Amino acid sequence: MKALLIVAHGSRRDSSNDEVRALAHAVGLHPDNRYSRVSCAFLELAQPSIPDGIAALADEGADDITVVPYFLSAGRHVVEDIPAEVGKAGIPEGVSVHIAPYVGQSSAMAGLLLSQGGSI
Amino acid sequence: MKALLIVAHGSRRDSSNDEVRALAHAVGLHPDNRYSRVSCAFLELAQPSIPDGIAALADEGADDITVVPYFLSAGRHVVEDIPAEVGKAGIPEGVSVHIAPYVGQSSAMAGLLLSQGGSI
Repeated sequence: MKALLIVAHGSRRDSSNDEVRALAHAVGLHPDNRYSRVSCAFLELAQPSIPDGIAALADEGADDITVVPYFLSAGRHVVEDIPAEVGKAGIPEGVSVHIAPYVGQSSAMAGLLLSQGGSI
Repeated sequence: MKALLIVAHGSRRDSSNDEVRALAHAVGLHPDNRYSRVSCAFLELAQPSIPDGIAALADEGADDITVVPYFLSAGRHVVEDIPAEVGKAGIPEGVSVHIAPYVGQSSAMAGLLLSQGGSI
């Protein structure tokens, strides 16, 4: 079973963390979604942690988990911290986890910016 | 003349700032782009500043400038700091500047996350 785990930084502001939770919910309901489960986790300051998020998906039967960093640039969090947290997860035998490119690398970002500006 | 100014946080890492500059370039070349100029500016740690970015576009003839915050959540930077920096710009008479919703608010973000995960 395939699952997507959206990993955000986490904030002291609950509303920012709730934005990420709402986004994960929207991804799950998206007509193009092919994942059986979509959830989110946080690098710091909010719950669940990345290891807990991976464990929860595995408990639900996911055996193919894609972690997508909800970050705009390849800073230390993306390059070092997220892989380290994924490494801390006690990944059960038979479950594979891989880390997708971070959001800022998407070729769709240019079009998203244009639509955000109201031009298209 | 319409212009788009993509405003990022700015980083001590040159490569992160260069990512934003490359993105602004890609937006300018995007087939759906209807802006005559697309450039970027930084809230801190990199140049140009937001006032300098606005002034440069106005000097080039822009009279309708859209500022789009390249941020994923509505933290202090989006809610307070970017409007304050826009307010510091000496906006010439006849030039209008408005701030678009930040990137994390885009309804296209859910689909972007799915494509980033490789599902679609």
